[in-house]
Amino acid sequence: MVFVFGTLLEKMSNLSTSDHSSVVSINLFVALLCACIVIGHLLEENRWMNESITALVIGICTGVVILLITGGKNSHLLVFSEDLFFIYLLPPIIFNAGFQVKKKQFFRNFMTITLFGAIGTLISFIIISLGAITFFQKMNLGLAIGDYLAIGAIFAATDSVCTLQVLNQDETPLLYSLVFGEGVVNDATSVVLFNAVQNFDLSHISTSVALQLVGNFLYLFITSTVLGVVAGLLSAYVIKKLYFGRHSTDREVAIMMLMAYLSYMLAELCDLSAILTVFFCGIVMSHYTWHNVTESSRVTTKHTFATLSFVAEIFIFLYVGMDALDIEKWRFISDSPKTSVSVTSILLGLILVGRAAFVFPLSFLSNLTKNSYEKIGFKQQVTVWWAGLMRGAVSMALAYNQFTRSGHTQRHGNAIMITSTISVVLFSTVVFGLITKPLVRLLLPSAKQFDRMISSEPVTPKSFIVPLLGNEHDPEVDLDEQNVVNVQDSEANQGDRNVIRPSSFRMLLRKPTHTVHYYWRKFDDGFMRPVFGGRGFVPYVPGSPIEQSVHQWQGEAKH
Amino acid sequence: MVFVFGTLLEKMSNLSTSDHSSVVSINLFVALLCACIVIGHLLEENRWMNESITALVIGICTGVVILLITGGKNSHLLVFSEDLFFIYLLPPIIFNAGFQVKKKQFFRNFMTITLFGAIGTLISFIIISLGAITFFQKMNLGLAIGDYLAIGAIFAATDSVCTLQVLNQDETPLLYSLVFGEGVVNDATSVVLFNAVQNFDLSHISTSVALQLVGNFLYLFITSTVLGVVAGLLSAYVIKKLYFGRHSTDREVAIMMLMAYLSYMLAELCDLSAILTVFFCGIVMSHYTWHNVTESSRVTTKHTFATLSFVAEIFIFLYVGMDALDIEKWRFISDSPKTSVSVTSILLGLILVGRAAFVFPLSFLSNLTKNSYEKIGFKQQVTVWWAGLMRGAVSMALAYNQFTRSGHTQRHGNAIMITSTISVVLFSTVVFGLITKPLVRLLLPSAKQFDRMISSEPVTPKSFIVPLLGNEHDPEVDLDEQNVVNVQDSEANQGDRNVIRPSSFRMLLRKPTHTVHYYWRKFDDGFMRPVFGGRGFVPYVPGSPIEQSVHQWQGEAKH
Repeated sequence: MVFVFGTLLEKMSNLSTSDHSSVVSINLFVALLCACIVIGHLLEENRWMNESITALVIGICTGVVILLITGGKNSHLLVFSEDLFFIYLLPPIIFNAGFQVKKKQFFRNFMTITLFGAIGTLISFIIISLGAITFFQKMNLGLAIGDYLAIGAIFAATDSVCTLQVLNQDETPLLYSLVFGEGVVNDATSVVLFNAVQNFDLSHISTSVALQLVGNFLYLFITSTVLGVVAGLLSAYVIKKLYFGRHSTDREVAIMMLMAYLSYMLAELCDLSAILTVFFCGIVMSHYTWHNVTESSRVTTKHTFATLSFVAEIFIFLYVGMDALDIEKWRFISDSPKTSVSVTSILLGLILVGRAAFVFPLSFLSNLTKNSYEKIGFKQQVTVWWAGLMRGAVSMALAYNQFTRSGHTQRHGNAIMITSTISVVLFSTVVFGLITKPLVRLLLPSAKQFDRMISSEPVTPKSFIVPLLGNEHDPEVDLDEQNVVNVQDSEANQGDRNVIRPSSFRMLLRKPTHTVHYYWRKFDDGFMRPVFGGRGFVPYVPGSPIEQSVHQWQGEAKH
Repeated sequence: MVFVFGTLLEKMSNLSTSDHSSVVSINLFVALLCACIVIGHLLEENRWMNESITALVIGICTGVVILLITGGKNSHLLVFSEDLFFIYLLPPIIFNAGFQVKKKQFFRNFMTITLFGAIGTLISFIIISLGAITFFQKMNLGLAIGDYLAIGAIFAATDSVCTLQVLNQDETPLLYSLVFGEGVVNDATSVVLFNAVQNFDLSHISTSVALQLVGNFLYLFITSTVLGVVAGLLSAYVIKKLYFGRHSTDREVAIMMLMAYLSYMLAELCDLSAILTVFFCGIVMSHYTWHNVTESSRVTTKHTFATLSFVAEIFIFLYVGMDALDIEKWRFISDSPKTSVSVTSILLGLILVGRAAFVFPLSFLSNLTKNSYEKIGFKQQVTVWWAGLMRGAVSMALAYNQFTRSGHTQRHGNAIMITSTISVVLFSTVVFGLITKPLVRLLLPSAKQFDRMISSEPVTPKSFIVPLLGNEHDPEVDLDEQNVVNVQDSEANQGDRNVIRPSSFRMLLRKPTHTVHYYWRKFDDGFMRPVFGGRGFVPYVPGSPIEQSVHQWQGEAKH
């Protein structure tokens, strides 16, 4: 959208016409963003609201005001732009999620996450598609078989952005990593399913088509991940080799941002799952690149990525709220409000059932492989089920893609599907979202205690784990904690680690995850970190700007 | 450009067509930006090159490659977009300049800067316009009187961005503040002149029209400045009152960014000089808002603004370079290459003369009011003259605005003016830009020493100045230096300041600038800072992330 791709003449006509209205709407959006931030800050202590609902409500109110001022005519300003969402708003959010994710927690639950994201989404897709076929065919909406399957894919796509808003990584790390990780893998699955629905000949579903789908998913999953990892490693290597910090810290920050964005856009270019790519790029960057830059660049990147992600999130909800009031879309279904309401209700029901149908069985399966302390309890399963119910901008973008290609004015069914999608998004975000916060508090009353119990693995004796995981000197420890570590201690510990070397095969049988982790650490220390940097590469400069570590410093100074 | 303002149907057709090509060009641009950063880093030590020339050259090379690959057909991708430049790329650059400018230096030379920016630009405009009328009328280019005056306005607009690249604030602070400050005021003047040229009835130039122009300029200058100051103060007040840092530092950073951008866009909306507005917003934010946020937000904002500005600068030069190769524009003048070359040469000559015609006389005038040590020497005058010769994206945007409105295919003269503008921009940036670095070194061999001598005012006895300017504890001291200051010292000094109070009227006669400064400081301490925060508001947390101050800390810890 940024670049003008028409002919010169087209551009010329744009120059005079679009200039003023775009300035007006940018002013409006920026002012509303400021308002959302201030109001969100004031409502911080509120137990029901969260930032996304605030933004959504403000967006809807603004839409109403604009409608009233322009007399119901000028609502084009509010049309949802798929490009804006996928090219500008989504990348910072997902990248930041990867950058700040608790890697230990994420990789420990990797199998469960993949199971939920891949198989779960497929189950959800099948149930919603079958439900849509069953119910909507009776309603004579004029939809084809491809449309029903597309509905399945659209409403099987969970909204990762909502999850980030509703769950707290620090309070419920296990649930957060499960639900959010599932959301990321879910994206890859959704892309595959949606492309499959649009491209494959679906009138003849056979084993070969199913195999092709599975192959496609694996290809997409692996190439997307590899692309993200390569981009992250490349940035780490370049920054380590050239040592940008020598001349300016700005170059380091710029390179990190641009490389991350490049990985996302390259994935888009190759029709991969850009969300997966940029997520893994974020993980790799926080593990290697982040440690190769100067101290001030570290603070800057950490907070800048968080801020960009924060603003993009608010923008999306504001935007979805304003877009919902686009009068054009509602005009087409004004003659059949009953149909629209029933379609929306059916879809909401299917989403509830479709998610329940995989969360509980797959949790049961996952629990079979885990020992009793790592199991996902029933209350947690309910939370996982509930927290993934929200549908957001991704569903909307897919719905626009599917139902406006042939022009939604032509077919009545298309108009109904667009408005129903908007209704589902609004309803699920506002109602389900409002209930989630109290629900989490109700189901997991001592969320903090409970999760800490699970994540610190009390079974394994501490003395056995320490040399394996390196515990407090773990390179996969999270950004915040790393400032506190002392280099000398770390080196001493590395010595320890090399001394104790239990029989690896026996370990693999007993503790597969820990063994994988052990070999990964060996590989990381032996090969990856010498090449790509990572913690300990740059001479550690103590005294971080974060107050916590400043206090630590003051303490040290006194000694 | 971000929002889709056409009808729904237009949007639909865009969805399928623009999607892929926009992804391709974003990939290309981001990859080229990365390349520019890396190459710029490698050439850092080079005495001729600077980042802007590197980006320009890479842009031209890429343009050539694209032309060759597409066989000279597909060059529309490279068309210069005025919106992209004014709405997205310029704001971060100018804001950052205001945010990081050495305020003391800037305000001390405020009169000279305004003189250069307002009167100087007018002189330059008149000379270039008269020259264009004289030379181009003989060539039969088919231009009207309005076009000639527009040419004057277009080429009187200096390129602030180039200045930032060529001069160094730390090495030559006086020259930097003169040339860059002039560039900012120049923008307001250019906007007034350009609007005047487009709207006024210029066939009857009378005294009333001239007065109207002056009135317009004053109105624009004052309202733009006030808007910027108000936006900055509002952000300071909001952040101080609500104390965002309590919940999250991201909100502080987001509010600062959004408020700054809002001030720019509001100025655009009201047809003010957005550059002036956002520049003053930057100054106010660095004086008040920046001190009200948490320590990590300070580091983040400082580096983020610098990084965004840095990336935007490179982007502009890359873009101008690529745009220069747009084959469409060159096709129209292929039958008259001689005319094009002579027009370009005449314009370059007029720019040289037009700038010389005001730099030397106005410097002479300015020197009359200063004592011998503050005077602008001849060598410095030459540097000021030379450093402001470059023309950049602003000239190009204005030229597009003037010469493509009626469709440049219709009139031969328009096509020639567009290509000549591009040639002037390329030539001045590359050739003048290449020579500036060695020239500064040649003319001011001991630039650092020389400027320090000038800026530290050796005439005034140190003991007299200290209580007035607060010297090292000056609240207008620059961002970098502030980390080193100790709160207790500062308070002690504030006591001093109140004790010594020389007769103010006598002082006003002898040292007008210092007296203004003295009363400003009183007003700042007595009213502004209690309301809007500023240094000393938030309990000062020592231990900054910048290594320099870390070492200082280590030193302090040892004592």
